[in-house]
Parts: sequence; C-alpha cells; structure tokens
Amino acid sequence: MKIGVLGTGAAGQTVAAKFVALGHDVMMGARAADNDKVLGFASRTGGKAGTFADAAAHGDMVFNCTRGDTSLAALSGLSQQLEGKILVDVANPLDFSSGFPPHLTVSNTDSLAEQIQRALPKTFVVKSLNTVNAAVMIEPARVPGRHTVFVSGNDQHSKGKVQDFLRSLGWQSIIDLGDITSARAAEQLLPLWVRLYGVLGTADFNIAVMKP
Amino acid sequence: MKIGVLGTGAAGQTVAAKFVALGHDVMMGARAADNDKVLGFASRTGGKAGTFADAAAHGDMVFNCTRGDTSLAALSGLSQQLEGKILVDVANPLDFSSGFPPHLTVSNTDSLAEQIQRALPKTFVVKSLNTVNAAVMIEPARVPGRHTVFVSGNDQHSKGKVQDFLRSLGWQSIIDLGDITSARAAEQLLPLWVRLYGVLGTADFNIAVMKP
Repeated sequence: MKIGVLGTGAAGQTVAAKFVALGHDVMMGARAADNDKVLGFASRTGGKAGTFADAAAHGDMVFNCTRGDTSLAALSGLSQQLEGKILVDVANPLDFSSGFPPHLTVSNTDSLAEQIQRALPKTFVVKSLNTVNAAVMIEPARVPGRHTVFVSGNDQHSKGKVQDFLRSLGWQSIIDLGDITSARAAEQLLPLWVRLYGVLGTADFNIAVMKP
Repeated sequence: MKIGVLGTGAAGQTVAAKFVALGHDVMMGARAADNDKVLGFASRTGGKAGTFADAAAHGDMVFNCTRGDTSLAALSGLSQQLEGKILVDVANPLDFSSGFPPHLTVSNTDSLAEQIQRALPKTFVVKSLNTVNAAVMIEPARVPGRHTVFVSGNDQHSKGKVQDFLRSLGWQSIIDLGDITSARAAEQLLPLWVRLYGVLGTADFNIAVMKP
C-alpha cells in the first residue's frame, strides 16, 4: 500500500520505518523537502522523502504524526491532497508550556480529531494509536497480554480498513468507540498515560479492556 | 471501622450495603434525615441513617457518593465534621444536560477531587473507585483478570489506608497515580467509560494496566 507519514519526530520515524519494513511504499513528509530528518529517513530505510503535500498526495492511507499542537496548521492546507483518503490521526493535543503534567489544548467538548475532520470535510479521519507509545504502536507484543487499541471515525468502511491495517501490525484487541466525537475519549486518556509513564518508569505499557 | 457514606443514589446504596455486610459500622447520610432512601437503607441493611453532617461526623473514613455536579455544595459545609478524616471521593463531575455523551463540568487543568480538597483543606481527600461501576467497586471479581483501580491524594498515609480498604474489597491491582492533581487523569477516564458502556452493553468491565 502507498502510505504517507506526515511528521518527522519520534512517532513518524518509528511508524514509517516499520511500514517500509512491512513492504509498503512509504513517503515521509516534512515542512520542507530538504529537512534533515526526512532525508535521513529516506537514506536509512529506502523510503521516500517529500513535503507534507508530497506525502499526502503519495499515500492511499496517510498518518498524521505531527505534533498535536501544530497538526491543524500543518494539515489544513492539504484538503486537496487528502480528499477521499483515510487520515489516521495518531497525534495528541498536549501542551507542555505550563510544565508537567501537560494539559490538553482541546478536550471534553471537542477533540483534535474533530478539529481536523472539520478542516478536512472530504477526508475520512480515523483516530487511533494515540493512546500508546510509538514503539508499542508498531509492535504491540512489547506489552504482554491482549491489550487494547481504539478507533474513532465517522466512516465505517474507513475504520474497517484501519482495523485491517492494525491487525497487520499485530493488534488483536481493537475497539471501535464510535464516530469521530468519540476521539474525545481516546485523547482524554493521555493524562492517565502521562501519569502511568511517571509511575511505571517505562513507555512499554498499555491498558486492556476486560469484561466477562 | 466506622464508615460514613454521603449520598443515597445507586453508588451510595451499593457500597454502603456492602460495607455493612463486611461488618463495618456504617451510617448513610442524606440531605434530610427523613429521606426515604436513607431510611430504606437502614431498615434493609441494619446500617444507620442520618444527614450528611451526621454521617460525616460518624465515619472515620467517609465516602463521597453524591452526584458529582452537586458534591461541592453538599460537602463544603462539612469541614468541621470531616477535619482530619479520610474522604474517599468516588464521584464524577458528569453533566448530562446537553445529552449523550455527557461532558465533564471540570477537567484538564482541574478536577472535582481538587475542588473538594481546596474546600476541605484539613481533610485527606483520596480519589478512587470513580473509574468503575458501583457493582464492580465492591465486587471486582465481576470482571475477570487482574484489572486496575487507581488512588490519587496528597497524603501518603491516607492513600495507604484506602489501599488496605480496597484490598479488603478484593482489589489486587491498585496504582497510586500521585498527588490529588492526578485525579484529573482518573476523572478524564469517564468519557472512555461512557463510550465503552455503550459499545460493550454492560457496566461489568474495567481496564487493566499491562506492562512487561
């Protein structure tokens, strides 16, 4: 599959390298095409490098791995390149400007995923994977047991395709929380994630939904 | 132990009846002492009935089972009765006035537990149990596996006493998230709880924190 990965940080580098290793045709996009991190990705992995617009145009499925507090600015100009495509939003709207713990820049009655969906009405936004660390996103077996990842989005077909993709990464417990407004629930897990990271001393953890 | 339970709704009734069954000296408090629900509790279980002030004065450990959107009003007059005591806050600041899903009346940069702690500076507020249904609070074995409950609070000794009490209810996985500000993380789990309740069709569920 042709995959675009927007963002050159730890999350983008980790998932894009894995997608190349799985045999996908991956282009990472940066703000500028000559960005060192995107060129480094291409030379290390054999993936492709481009701008945000290039990577958005390249992918049949596109991952938003930009920093949550800059995602809207990065994505809102890409409505043409992302029209009719699935955008998997793994970003979190964390604001560290007041120190630890970070708070969310949007929450409770709205979410980053909803903001992105409103900015890109012809794109199928699916919130997923934002509740785990990048290394766990692409290798869920780092955490033992049948732990859970969530999907939220308005289009059932797109959520099905994302779930298929998640299974290809090794995810076994996938819960569809509902339409894109349910991304509020997934994003509001981050305050717990941040606390658990402090308490457990590792990012290799996740939650499992348990029921009879 | 002498236990006060503030609130006569489903959560208060469920936990108070269990505490009586475990042999504790329990008084349930209502807004008015002649409230039918509190009198019903006393006649059904052999527990005691009183006002909020009576139950707060009675308990060595007091449970806030009032509705989250009314907790502050109910508790702020009880500073004398609750001085030096542990108040276990199981309430959630849910607002259903805009329909489903409910939003939180306080979140992100503050929490109900912090508001209560500020209103009762000489009380040891410990947030706990708010992330599960009342039936699961007092019988965690309704959900299979080693699923998790959290505690948040400023006083380590009080959190230890609450953890002992939780173990007496059958809880095995208890995570101390930190000071009372970490109650934000526990309260912001409610949007996920509400979504999962809709998806799973049962309130008998919980999350387990999984790590290597």
